[in-house]
Amino acid sequence: MKVEYINPFIKSTINTFHTMIGDTPKPGKPEIKKDPFPVFDISGVIGISGEAIGSVVLSYPKVVALKIASKFIQEDIKIVGKELADAIGEITNIIAGNAKQDLTQFKISISLPNVIIGTGHQIRTPGESPILIVPFVSAFGTFGLEVCIKENK
Amino acid sequence: MKVEYINPFIKSTINTFHTMIGDTPKPGKPEIKKDPFPVFDISGVIGISGEAIGSVVLSYPKVVALKIASKFIQEDIKIVGKELADAIGEITNIIAGNAKQDLTQFKISISLPNVIIGTGHQIRTPGESPILIVPFVSAFGTFGLEVCIKENK
Repeated sequence: MKVEYINPFIKSTINTFHTMIGDTPKPGKPEIKKDPFPVFDISGVIGISGEAIGSVVLSYPKVVALKIASKFIQEDIKIVGKELADAIGEITNIIAGNAKQDLTQFKISISLPNVIIGTGHQIRTPGESPILIVPFVSAFGTFGLEVCIKENK
Repeated sequence: MKVEYINPFIKSTINTFHTMIGDTPKPGKPEIKKDPFPVFDISGVIGISGEAIGSVVLSYPKVVALKIASKFIQEDIKIVGKELADAIGEITNIIAGNAKQDLTQFKISISLPNVIIGTGHQIRTPGESPILIVPFVSAFGTFGLEVCIKENK
């Protein structure tokens, strides 16, 4: 994937957190994801298809996901369940949807989000397409953005 | 989602396993996914978008995923790593791609697969859209198919 494809997702993550969660997370340098893969506890995953295909993933440690989801719905979420999954899915959806608006070089559409719940899981995108990861530092802790997009010929 | 939307995925799962893995897995009755959600170790996830949006997930216990992936690539895979993820992703891709051919009522496209690796993870699809799950019994053990599709108005 071209490095510039990640920029709309970085911008959208910052803007979404700023607007919806009242924090402006700081992105680290995008890097190619490689072994050993980072592990997280909660991930929101959305597929991208159309003139480009791929996916966008936002992954969090459990404690960070609980804090961010609580802030997002303005209620204290203490357990990993439906409320947490709904909030993390919706945040992923907003970030992917806003990024899509800036990827004007492609006509793409996004899937429904899935939320993965599992201590120390990793996510692999099979094949040779490189995945870019961007670590973010927020007021609630660190989390990761991963994007894989390739032109769909 | 309409129950009949699951049928192309069931057919495609059976056909793909028959052709690629030399086994004809038997589907159980489709049911609406609800708490307590099933947990698995390896899942292949693909997003669906276009005139309908959703996702398809195939989930396996680790030992079953290793056997199926080994049979698929005709090499003995002993560890959970790139080879396993590539095989599980490719199987998910073939199943989703073949099912798409039968969902002629919608113009839909599918994303790149992601493969989740994590002992005892669960996958939630946020919101109110019901997810249908179909347990399969194969020669290599049981696995699960999950499909969520809704019309994209």
